[in-house]
Amino acid sequence: MEKARLETFADGVFAIAATLLIIDVSVRAQGHELGHAVLHAWPEYAAYAVSFMTIGIMWLNHHDCMRQIGSIDRVFMVINLLLLMCIAFVPFPTRLVAEHFHDGGLRAAALTYGVTMTATAICFGLFWFYAARGRRLIHDEADPRVIAGISRSYLPGAPIYLAATLVAFWSPKASVALFALIALLYILESSVFARPQPSPAEI
Amino acid sequence: MEKARLETFADGVFAIAATLLIIDVSVRAQGHELGHAVLHAWPEYAAYAVSFMTIGIMWLNHHDCMRQIGSIDRVFMVINLLLLMCIAFVPFPTRLVAEHFHDGGLRAAALTYGVTMTATAICFGLFWFYAARGRRLIHDEADPRVIAGISRSYLPGAPIYLAATLVAFWSPKASVALFALIALLYILESSVFARPQPSPAEI
Amino acid sequence: MEKARLETFADGVFAIAATLLIIDVSVRAQGHELGHAVLHAWPEYAAYAVSFMTIGIMWLNHHDCMRQIGSIDRVFMVINLLLLMCIAFVPFPTRLVAEHFHDGGLRAAALTYGVTMTATAICFGLFWFYAARGRRLIHDEADPRVIAGISRSYLPGAPIYLAATLVAFWSPKASVALFALIALLYILESSVFARPQPSPAEI
Amino acid sequence: MEKARLETFADGVFAIAATLLIIDVSVRAQGHELGHAVLHAWPEYAAYAVSFMTIGIMWLNHHDCMRQIGSIDRVFMVINLLLLMCIAFVPFPTRLVAEHFHDGGLRAAALTYGVTMTATAICFGLFWFYAARGRRLIHDEADPRVIAGISRSYLPGAPIYLAATLVAFWSPKASVALFALIALLYILESSVFARPQPSPAEI
Repeated sequence: MEKARLETFADGVFAIAATLLIIDVSVRAQGHELGHAVLHAWPEYAAYAVSFMTIGIMWLNHHDCMRQIGSIDRVFMVINLLLLMCIAFVPFPTRLVAEHFHDGGLRAAALTYGVTMTATAICFGLFWFYAARGRRLIHDEADPRVIAGISRSYLPGAPIYLAATLVAFWSPKASVALFALIALLYILESSVFARPQPSPAEI
Repeated sequence: MEKARLETFADGVFAIAATLLIIDVSVRAQGHELGHAVLHAWPEYAAYAVSFMTIGIMWLNHHDCMRQIGSIDRVFMVINLLLLMCIAFVPFPTRLVAEHFHDGGLRAAALTYGVTMTATAICFGLFWFYAARGRRLIHDEADPRVIAGISRSYLPGAPIYLAATLVAFWSPKASVALFALIALLYILESSVFARPQPSPAEI
Repeated sequence: MEKARLETFADGVFAIAATLLIIDVSVRAQGHELGHAVLHAWPEYAAYAVSFMTIGIMWLNHHDCMRQIGSIDRVFMVINLLLLMCIAFVPFPTRLVAEHFHDGGLRAAALTYGVTMTATAICFGLFWFYAARGRRLIHDEADPRVIAGISRSYLPGAPIYLAATLVAFWSPKASVALFALIALLYILESSVFARPQPSPAEI
Repeated sequence: MEKARLETFADGVFAIAATLLIIDVSVRAQGHELGHAVLHAWPEYAAYAVSFMTIGIMWLNHHDCMRQIGSIDRVFMVINLLLLMCIAFVPFPTRLVAEHFHDGGLRAAALTYGVTMTATAICFGLFWFYAARGRRLIHDEADPRVIAGISRSYLPGAPIYLAATLVAFWSPKASVALFALIALLYILESSVFARPQPSPAEI
């Protein structure tokens, strides 16, 4: 029951953070200039799509973790709040990247986006490894190979985002392209590539 | 359980996307001019109503699909995220249509609205046909006639929205009127006309 | 299960509509003038409180209705969407009343608020009487006296709001005060006064 | 069931209020000045973090209370609405503190924040003591020591927030620092320090 309510709250924050992204998609133009402005605003849509799918994939991963977890404690709930605080923050750097894609502010925007994603990945690591360490919160039937597989897949998250963030010092556009690429890889890994590996029955 | 959490997340995005529409309904006027401005802003309320009911009917349809589905896999979850990404995008073109109803930007606004609805209808098709193809995710007791009925009813969605979108090149107002008409037809089809056809007991 | 998902969606819209009200509470002032501006903005807080509690009480009433309902059909789901569309609209007239409380726009704002609340009360009536008429959707164990009691309590809703709305033609401030008074009466009726009457066990 | 739906609604308001905080985090700068502006806006992020975690901890506490409660009545539901109305209000004073951190409006902002938190703490007290008084709504298996422990921990909430609020008359920055400190203490109390004390099994 505790676990169910934590999931309800987390699902709410994930769903709201993803859906709020649209508030920041805006195109200001007068009359006949709207057509051109709508096309010119493609970084807004791209930023929306990348952040929506990134939050969505994180929701899927949060799911996968919770399925292995049998009991929860207060430390875990606070770590979960820290993780949700990072995820609910994502609309802010997304807006910065979208607004400054065509001007000199892109470096600062990409760094803000990257620091947010790196912090989120670190909190996700904390969230999982706190639960998995010595099977502290893992339920008894959980397959040790699945636990090890999740642990392996979460280790590179923070370093990858950190690397893509540092690229912004050299080229902000390359950094932003890497964030999109990471989202795409996570989508592919979550769907196409994830299927052959052993996993508990999903019903 | 997997299925339940997917539904919770989807319900959240549908409910938030529909409710966020009100943020964009705005009337700017000073003092005694407010009365006239409130009446003059009827396209804002119409756009709100059309998009709210369109999202609401899609939520009902999402429901009907999920009732036929017994198990889910990761590809399906990612398709579901793409569908939700389209639905959460609807407030943006709704705002464009409402703001530019009385000026020369309506063509671009109607095209943006139409492209969004066409993409949403395509994702909805993907969502359903991925699950229904060879009864991949359909549960064992599902009535084949109901499955076939849903498949038949989803085929025309994308072409209809595409046709209404193309009308905007000829007349933006006619295109927007068609979007409202499509919403109205979906409402009628979901309520009055839907009742005689065979369907599983709803409790 | 159908019923449970309708409740989840409705709960979402009620919770979001109520919580979104805070977005429109704003005070614009520079530096040391903020103190005075915060106090001067009391109509913003009052409008927030009245609308939040009104939406909250409607959520309680929606609850009470759903407890008597055993099955649902598609017409009922569409009526429910219309009701939610009205409730999700409440932040807009709330903002108008709060912004124009001190200027000549209050009459138009109060009329907009009143028309919204009257439409909401009419949809609530539709929602309940569609279900209760001939016990169409009422579950078998429901006490006829409770059904009759709910029906009796919903009849005056729309006329009361309509009357308070019409008062705005004579005095906008009196009209707005009546909206606050109606909210207060609903709160009292829902809590203090509701207790002695026979009702099913609440667990 | 009544209890479950109250929890769903409350979870929704907590999750939305916390996630909406990000809408008010904003940095306005042109091009190359963005980097400096992003760093200079640290009070925005701090205010976001303090309010997010405060709402999160209140959600945890709401949880703990509900676990001890077996039945609910209408008065309790209305008190719960009043509590949620306070929590959904938190984004407003948070925005004031963040916007006026560097100017002369901080005193008024800190007082507004403090009054909101004090009112929230009072409503939380009402919420709990209404339920716990004579074990009115407490379920039969609840451990009296846990009930007494919760009662003891909620008594100081309102006085502590009131004291931190009054500090704003002397030093607004000290007052704001105290709000952050209170949040931090609640986080520590909820996680690290909470573990040794006797509590019902959490599964």
